[in-house]
Amino acid sequence: MKDQFYAYIQDLQNKITQALNDVDGKAKFKEDVWKRSEGGGGQSRIIENGAVIEKGGVNISAVHGQLPKSMQAYFKIGEVDFSACGLSLVIHPKNPMAPTVHANWRYFEMYDNKGVLADQWFGGGQDLTPYYLFEEDAMYFHQQCKQACDKHHPDFYKDFKKQCDRYFYNEHRKEGRGVGGLFFDYLKKDKNFNIKDRFDFVTEVGDVFLDAYLPILNKRKDLPYSKNNRDWQEIRRGRYVEFNLIHDKGTLFGLKTKGRIESILMSLPPHVQWRYNYEPDQGSEEFKLIAALKNPREWI
Amino acid sequence: MKDQFYAYIQDLQNKITQALNDVDGKAKFKEDVWKRSEGGGGQSRIIENGAVIEKGGVNISAVHGQLPKSMQAYFKIGEVDFSACGLSLVIHPKNPMAPTVHANWRYFEMYDNKGVLADQWFGGGQDLTPYYLFEEDAMYFHQQCKQACDKHHPDFYKDFKKQCDRYFYNEHRKEGRGVGGLFFDYLKKDKNFNIKDRFDFVTEVGDVFLDAYLPILNKRKDLPYSKNNRDWQEIRRGRYVEFNLIHDKGTLFGLKTKGRIESILMSLPPHVQWRYNYEPDQGSEEFKLIAALKNPREWI
Repeated sequence: MKDQFYAYIQDLQNKITQALNDVDGKAKFKEDVWKRSEGGGGQSRIIENGAVIEKGGVNISAVHGQLPKSMQAYFKIGEVDFSACGLSLVIHPKNPMAPTVHANWRYFEMYDNKGVLADQWFGGGQDLTPYYLFEEDAMYFHQQCKQACDKHHPDFYKDFKKQCDRYFYNEHRKEGRGVGGLFFDYLKKDKNFNIKDRFDFVTEVGDVFLDAYLPILNKRKDLPYSKNNRDWQEIRRGRYVEFNLIHDKGTLFGLKTKGRIESILMSLPPHVQWRYNYEPDQGSEEFKLIAALKNPREWI
Repeated sequence: MKDQFYAYIQDLQNKITQALNDVDGKAKFKEDVWKRSEGGGGQSRIIENGAVIEKGGVNISAVHGQLPKSMQAYFKIGEVDFSACGLSLVIHPKNPMAPTVHANWRYFEMYDNKGVLADQWFGGGQDLTPYYLFEEDAMYFHQQCKQACDKHHPDFYKDFKKQCDRYFYNEHRKEGRGVGGLFFDYLKKDKNFNIKDRFDFVTEVGDVFLDAYLPILNKRKDLPYSKNNRDWQEIRRGRYVEFNLIHDKGTLFGLKTKGRIESILMSLPPHVQWRYNYEPDQGSEEFKLIAALKNPREWI
């Protein structure tokens, strides 16, 4: 399963970076291969200063070895070995009218103290962070997510949409990071699904990513915008940074397992602002975005 | 002691904001008064878009009430009341040749379950974060810190300088946040010092702040700089954000005790950049800074 999933994300990394290179037209993803001293490594592909993408990363990694102490406490387990692989991506477009997108699909194995597979699960999801709210974009993105989910279980979309709203929430700001999408974790085999069913579902979601995001990016990437729109985008990117550094378990997992710092923090936006107590005018487009983030909506 | 210390930080806030208003000449600190629903509140003074100071805050607060659950675990204590007051400041100059400065002086009281004072301590310090290393500035700042310390105990400077290097350390980057200064915490009464001695020491350090920082700011604020210097400053400010959001216990304490978010996060710089895997050329001024941050130096 580990090899099968790694082969899948390698292929998906190729497809996604190729498609985004084509959309951008100016910059291209560059690859950095890295090794983890405790076991494993990854291939990070980063794009910067493109015509469309200001900064983005589409990274795969496969790490293994002894579960770090801090993670042992987290999983309430002793000294065991683990193996984890996945694809993580974040795309920060230059145009404030185009939303940032994040996605991650991952597979985790945990072994007993004899090295025998003791537990295995999939996790992942994809979510959209607009700076200006185009309701049709949020609806379209969620529809694509729902279509992929519905092929596997009628409750998946509803459940994983709710989990996404809960997870990507800036508790200290009392607002969502974006308009959500899907988030799922600990998808293990059970009486209804074997591990191959879980694989089929996660790869279905992975396969729908480009269909869900590219049409939105293409629609917004050339819209006109002002300096004020750009400032707003940079201020909102600050909230993105706050979420990733304060709340995100994925970032934390990467730092605790001594992943490659530059690959983990590629998610941080290129230009960011923090202004004191900045609040948009009531009724403005910026204000409408905040209202949508304060109260997660049903987009379908 | 609580009232005496609060009176001191109120007065210090006035002195510091007045002096910085004078240096800036263009912008002025604006005050926001806030209340904490669980008890207490504060007065935040913020300056933005000045001629010299791009963003800064000099805040005082006094909060009290039941110790939040998360802090109970941290202090390994049950349901008790606490009281905390302090002054926190961060100044981000516009000119990349001028260093960012942070300082904090605080007093904490903890009560037993009958509401009787059970524990009390002071904490605080001040530290410098340059973007370009002027060794004479670091030396001068540390000398001022040492002079204040030496009036109270011959070991204080050495001990608190070391604690500062340890505390303001970006573990995930394996580098210091800046060139340090002083950091101390849990200064309680003991066989050598009563609580008034502790008060005298902390206020001595508070009193030296303007003498330690203003001459440096005045010396650097009008130096010429290039777009490259400014980019480097913004990239380094990214490390400042990383420290404050990932490692800083002060930020965490504020968020956990439901302090005022905008007052806590006033420490974040106004314009920040994250570039993928950015490394300065060997031998450059930027490279020299990094070398100094990788291995904390004795500045005296």
